[in-house]
Amino acid sequence: MTDYTNDTHDPSLTSWVESANDPDTDFPIQNLPFGVFTRNDNDDLASAHIGVAIGDSVFDLTRAVEAGILAVEDDLDTDFFLGILNEFMSRNHRQWSAVRSEISNLLRHDDAQLRDDAQLRDRLIIPQSDVEMQLPAIIGDYTDFYASISHATNVGTMFRPDNPLLPNYKHLPVGYHGRASSIVESGTSIRRPHGQLKADDQDTPTFGPVRLLDYEMEVGFFIGGGNSMGSRIDMVGATDHIFGLVLVNDWSARDVQKWEYQPLGPFNAKNFGTTISPWVVTLDALAPFREAGPHRSADDPQPLDYLKPNEDMQINMTVEVSIRSQQMRDTNMDAHVISRGNFNDMYWTIAQMLVHHTSTGCNMQPGDLIASGTVSGPEEFNRGCLLERTWRGTNPIDLPDGTQRKFLQDGDEVIMRGWCERAGCRRIGFGECRGIIEPAQ
Amino acid sequence: MTDYTNDTHDPSLTSWVESANDPDTDFPIQNLPFGVFTRNDNDDLASAHIGVAIGDSVFDLTRAVEAGILAVEDDLDTDFFLGILNEFMSRNHRQWSAVRSEISNLLRHDDAQLRDDAQLRDRLIIPQSDVEMQLPAIIGDYTDFYASISHATNVGTMFRPDNPLLPNYKHLPVGYHGRASSIVESGTSIRRPHGQLKADDQDTPTFGPVRLLDYEMEVGFFIGGGNSMGSRIDMVGATDHIFGLVLVNDWSARDVQKWEYQPLGPFNAKNFGTTISPWVVTLDALAPFREAGPHRSADDPQPLDYLKPNEDMQINMTVEVSIRSQQMRDTNMDAHVISRGNFNDMYWTIAQMLVHHTSTGCNMQPGDLIASGTVSGPEEFNRGCLLERTWRGTNPIDLPDGTQRKFLQDGDEVIMRGWCERAGCRRIGFGECRGIIEPAQ
Repeated sequence: MTDYTNDTHDPSLTSWVESANDPDTDFPIQNLPFGVFTRNDNDDLASAHIGVAIGDSVFDLTRAVEAGILAVEDDLDTDFFLGILNEFMSRNHRQWSAVRSEISNLLRHDDAQLRDDAQLRDRLIIPQSDVEMQLPAIIGDYTDFYASISHATNVGTMFRPDNPLLPNYKHLPVGYHGRASSIVESGTSIRRPHGQLKADDQDTPTFGPVRLLDYEMEVGFFIGGGNSMGSRIDMVGATDHIFGLVLVNDWSARDVQKWEYQPLGPFNAKNFGTTISPWVVTLDALAPFREAGPHRSADDPQPLDYLKPNEDMQINMTVEVSIRSQQMRDTNMDAHVISRGNFNDMYWTIAQMLVHHTSTGCNMQPGDLIASGTVSGPEEFNRGCLLERTWRGTNPIDLPDGTQRKFLQDGDEVIMRGWCERAGCRRIGFGECRGIIEPAQ
Repeated sequence: MTDYTNDTHDPSLTSWVESANDPDTDFPIQNLPFGVFTRNDNDDLASAHIGVAIGDSVFDLTRAVEAGILAVEDDLDTDFFLGILNEFMSRNHRQWSAVRSEISNLLRHDDAQLRDDAQLRDRLIIPQSDVEMQLPAIIGDYTDFYASISHATNVGTMFRPDNPLLPNYKHLPVGYHGRASSIVESGTSIRRPHGQLKADDQDTPTFGPVRLLDYEMEVGFFIGGGNSMGSRIDMVGATDHIFGLVLVNDWSARDVQKWEYQPLGPFNAKNFGTTISPWVVTLDALAPFREAGPHRSADDPQPLDYLKPNEDMQINMTVEVSIRSQQMRDTNMDAHVISRGNFNDMYWTIAQMLVHHTSTGCNMQPGDLIASGTVSGPEEFNRGCLLERTWRGTNPIDLPDGTQRKFLQDGDEVIMRGWCERAGCRRIGFGECRGIIEPAQ
């Protein structure tokens, strides 16, 4: 099999899209993440198009296929006219890589075809500021895991002081089914939900706006080709079912969660909204940042055979959370970084999550989204949600506007970023996953 | 507003479809449940059509609209050519009732239009034995509740002897998000899943075919018109969002469940398959069987205001489970009834489930499915799953083939039925929800 990914990673490769050569860009020619967008100022883009991010621009793949400049296998043509990535996601790894390679060739500095055709280039290369990003796929099912042992231990300590890490934790990736309908694209406001709450000093619950509103900094992955019901996905070949990764904000109402979560798990505490970043970064783009792992201590049990890692599937990826209050926006203050962690701290890899999920014969479909759970690490600054970061509000965070945060306030904007970098590679970024809290209705 | 439902319930009303007048049929002219079907012996029905059940036949609504015989509001025409009910479900209660009324008029004994047109009648009225039923809707999200207090108490006693019914139970309908992709139509075989299991006397888990395979007899309801994200559905008007009800078999692996379910709830124990009955029985058809309730004892807390019942929403509906083993099928034995319960024993109504679910602003979409949780009652014979019915296998059930059941064996067929009946009304049935267990892969 041709290794289509080889030259697309060459760090010396540059693009004629100049902004893609900025060392700080999230979107060099080595990235090429897929997304779906509309452009409101242009009638023929009122319907959604498929594109890749390149520097500060979008390369419009729908128009590129239409113009005949992006050569794809015959039966893939129509995938780019559906305004949604599910069909393209349903293709196999070889096909994804071939398209990626074609795109890379068209955008590289020494390819004249598009570079030197000003009229076509203007149609196909659009500033990101002129487009509105949409959800990349119709998400049939959404699953959320709990794969950070630091997060599970911290939250467990707060919710079950006697019994923080349950006996199953080191044997299987704990997960639960989430709500797909309320997954929204970055930039969508989130209304503070109502919920049923019971304070420790009250005998009976009340119903009202939630008080302990939180985010969870997670990494999600989109399923490419699925499996039929009753069959399983094995560790060998598991990553071929994964199309790419996004940032996920699993908004959480901690007061609702505490009261409702036993015995069937979080429900209303999570279903009012989940925000994802718009650009799906492919596993091809992330290949240089894969590492061995997850690391187990001598005391830790070995995974059962069906979960044994067979390739480097830990991903060295920094994730960062910032908050910008209404007052900070009004006075033009920058967002304030409150945590930074690494996805390679997770106790279970995305391949293990997928394999465990399907080990019952549960069928995956193209466009299904699986999230990792909060990415937390061993240090206080690595904690990926306010519940942990402020230790349930006992250790508030100072914001530059002079206020403190235990949990989120109305008007707060949460901004998540993620990127991969190491010596000898171009930086691969995920863009942003943003959302502002609106007051309760 | 015209009350379209009035005459459609008249128990004296008969149909020219003779089998609909059989007092034992599930599908008299007073029922008219909606479903989706294909007919394999006829090319032009290779694609799915929408129909209603009438006696032992199906009335093909797709062809009826095409033939101009079923008059529906102008913009509803196309709903019947989509091969799936989601669009029709998205309409409002008045529109559903108007269509139901039109169908009733066409099928009543004294309406000659279709009755006396042999050619058209043969095209539009098809024996149920000649069709293959499909899922009635694309199910975006599936939610499962836990609304039987008998079930919660029984299961709680087994899983948490010290603490069977948790403090939240009587204050809110406990629920969790389920897996939508593995919902299948009645008749689909279910493969015994693999899972991670840990016996009480083992230190470490193993991976293999599950041993404690179970069904759960539930009632589900399809969402009609939804709500936008951030808005809520109130008790007033809640039922106008409910299109109709089906039987649900929430297949469950009890050994997986026990090991995995803490702290985030059932996951792999449930996601390998859920079977639903094909005919969606509308709330209009069920109107004569609505009752006050749920009943609370003097010691029970009153529901908070947002969950206070404002109309009779308990449904008097008998549900019944039978098992037929491979050997029983081979020797032509009838299925053996092992439990019978009533949906009016639930502690929470479907309206309360819907209102609580959306109380955070969680958005519902047409075709979303919400299930009640196992329908169990106070008596042993009312228990709607084997875990309860055999009390975790300590009280096995004798089958007529001479074998015993603690949990399901390969080859067992589980058959669920549901019906409503009371004096002065025609019996309204749900048909069957069936599935056979195939051996593990």
